[in-house]
Amino acid sequence: MADENVVYIGKKGVMSYVLAVITQFNNGASEVSIRARGKAISRAVDVAEIVRNRFMPDVKIKSINISTEEVEAEGQGPTKVSAIEIILQK
Amino acid sequence: MADENVVYIGKKGVMSYVLAVITQFNNGASEVSIRARGKAISRAVDVAEIVRNRFMPDVKIKSINISTEEVEAEGQGPTKVSAIEIILQK
Repeated sequence: MADENVVYIGKKGVMSYVLAVITQFNNGASEVSIRARGKAISRAVDVAEIVRNRFMPDVKIKSINISTEEVEAEGQGPTKVSAIEIILQK
Repeated sequence: MADENVVYIGKKGVMSYVLAVITQFNNGASEVSIRARGKAISRAVDVAEIVRNRFMPDVKIKSINISTEEVEAEGQGPTKVSAIEIILQK
């Protein structure tokens, strides 16, 4: 999957990311990967569900993977954080 | 899967739920379902990852499903909320 087909979920409103995913599909992507870490994981699930249920009913969930990543917390050394990747497929 | 093999993730600390999952497996369950809605979804992923990586390396992720559920918000009528179910298997 090309890097352009990845949508990283951060602290913006859910709809910003929903729009980003829809734009990727409309630009010709056959798959879009939604990735999030920590508390943004809930938002990643919201984004996938809203895209599928409200805007693109022909989009399916191809796979969902969870993992643990090591991140550098400021001044605290490495910390572990959960991550999710939801791959949507048209 | 019997109802006793479901761990619902709420607002307690992550370790309470990790312990609940481990207890289910130690009581003979071959599968445990971890379920959460809304903001608790991130915690459900944490619970699954901590059980697997720190306590029970022989436990695998059998499946991960996301969905949308309708809940009654107080005084607001029905609202939609995202949900996750992570099934762990020994």
